[in-house]
This record gives sequence, C-alpha cells and structure tokens, in this order.
Amino acid sequence: MKNQTYRMTMLFDFYGELLTDRQKEFFDLYYNEDLSLAEIAENAGISRQGVRDVIVRAEAAMQEVEDKTGIIKRFEAQRPHLDAVEAAAEQIRTINYRQFEDSRLTELADRITAEIIALKD
Amino acid sequence: MKNQTYRMTMLFDFYGELLTDRQKEFFDLYYNEDLSLAEIAENAGISRQGVRDVIVRAEAAMQEVEDKTGIIKRFEAQRPHLDAVEAAAEQIRTINYRQFEDSRLTELADRITAEIIALKD
Repeated sequence: MKNQTYRMTMLFDFYGELLTDRQKEFFDLYYNEDLSLAEIAENAGISRQGVRDVIVRAEAAMQEVEDKTGIIKRFEAQRPHLDAVEAAAEQIRTINYRQFEDSRLTELADRITAEIIALKD
Repeated sequence: MKNQTYRMTMLFDFYGELLTDRQKEFFDLYYNEDLSLAEIAENAGISRQGVRDVIVRAEAAMQEVEDKTGIIKRFEAQRPHLDAVEAAAEQIRTINYRQFEDSRLTELADRITAEIIALKD
C-alpha cells in the first residue's frame, strides 16, 4: 500500500476531515507517521487485517469524493501556470540584472516570486 | 434563500457532484437557472415545500463538507496573492513603458498577466 504515499497524502490533506476519527487515526499513523499495520494493530488491540480494512475504506471514501469532485486535480492543474509565472519573473530579474539594474524591477520580480512561493505552499 | 447565491454557486461548483441527481437538478434550476420554487415544483409534480426541502438538504450536505475540509476557503485564500502578482506585473509594464521600452520585458509581464487570468478562471 505504501507505494502510493504521495497520492494518499494528498487525499488526506484535502479530505481527511471527512473520515471517521478511527479512519483518520489509522490513516495518519500509517501514511504520515510511517507505522506498520502490525504496529498500529498492536497499539489498537485489533488484528492487522482489521487495521488494513479501516485504512482501505478510508482511502476508498476519499478517492470517491475526489473522483466525483476532481478538486485535487483542479489544484494540481494550477502548477504549470505557477511555474510559468515563476520562470517569467526569473527572466525579468536576469534581463534587469544584465541591462537595466533598476531596483524597482528587482523588487517587483522578487515580490512575484515570493507570492508564487506562497501560492505553491 | 436567493440572497446567498454567490455562496451557493461556489458550493455547487466544488461539491455539486456529491449530491444526488434530484438534489443536483433542483439546486441547479433554482440557483443557476433562476427558476422559482413554485416553477420547479410544478415541473416536477411535487409540492413547493418538497422542492425547498430537497434544496435545503443539498445545501446542508455541501456546507458540511466545506465546514470540514475548508477547501473553498483555501481556494479563496489564493486570491490576494494572485492580485498582488497581477499588480506587480502591471507596475513592471508601466516602468518598462515609461523608461526602458524593452519588448522582452513587455512580453514577460504580459505572460504573467495571462497566467494569472488563467489561474483566476
């Protein structure tokens, strides 16, 4: 299951609060805290298979919401646009550095980069 | 109910696909197509109160998802950053127009503006 950690982390980031407390706890321990199914099972006093079932159901519930809404896909579709703005700001900085040495342009390009970093966060 | 059309449109845009077909249909007719409860009721052959109940439940279901996940809030939090980038690109254009008249800077500032418009869409 852990070969899909990135996708799971995204699902949990967006939809984790839609899970039950138990689903949330096991999912978090497994994917974010990197505990094994056996470790979670031992702590919770249930079977390894029981833990696995809870996590699989949690994943299915979140994936269903994403399949219907496409919200994560929508967020990810912003990435190339943000990258393009960042690249343009970098080129403005370079042109200005080589040719004009205008402190206002430097500051504006830096501000754009800072805002893009905030947006990517 | 229609005084909250902006909020409803946002909820429907993000979470509409989580509704039942009937909820989706009535919600869309009421908020997007601007039909009255009475008109929807007549077309559907049910009571005005019945239509209202469906729409109120649809709204509650979507608002519950938003209250838990905060996804729309997250999207809206991007707006001031996008505005700041747009304003900076505009200032770069102005400085360049008045002082440097460099076509590369014009093109880069225009590209940033175009990307921001795409991101706001």
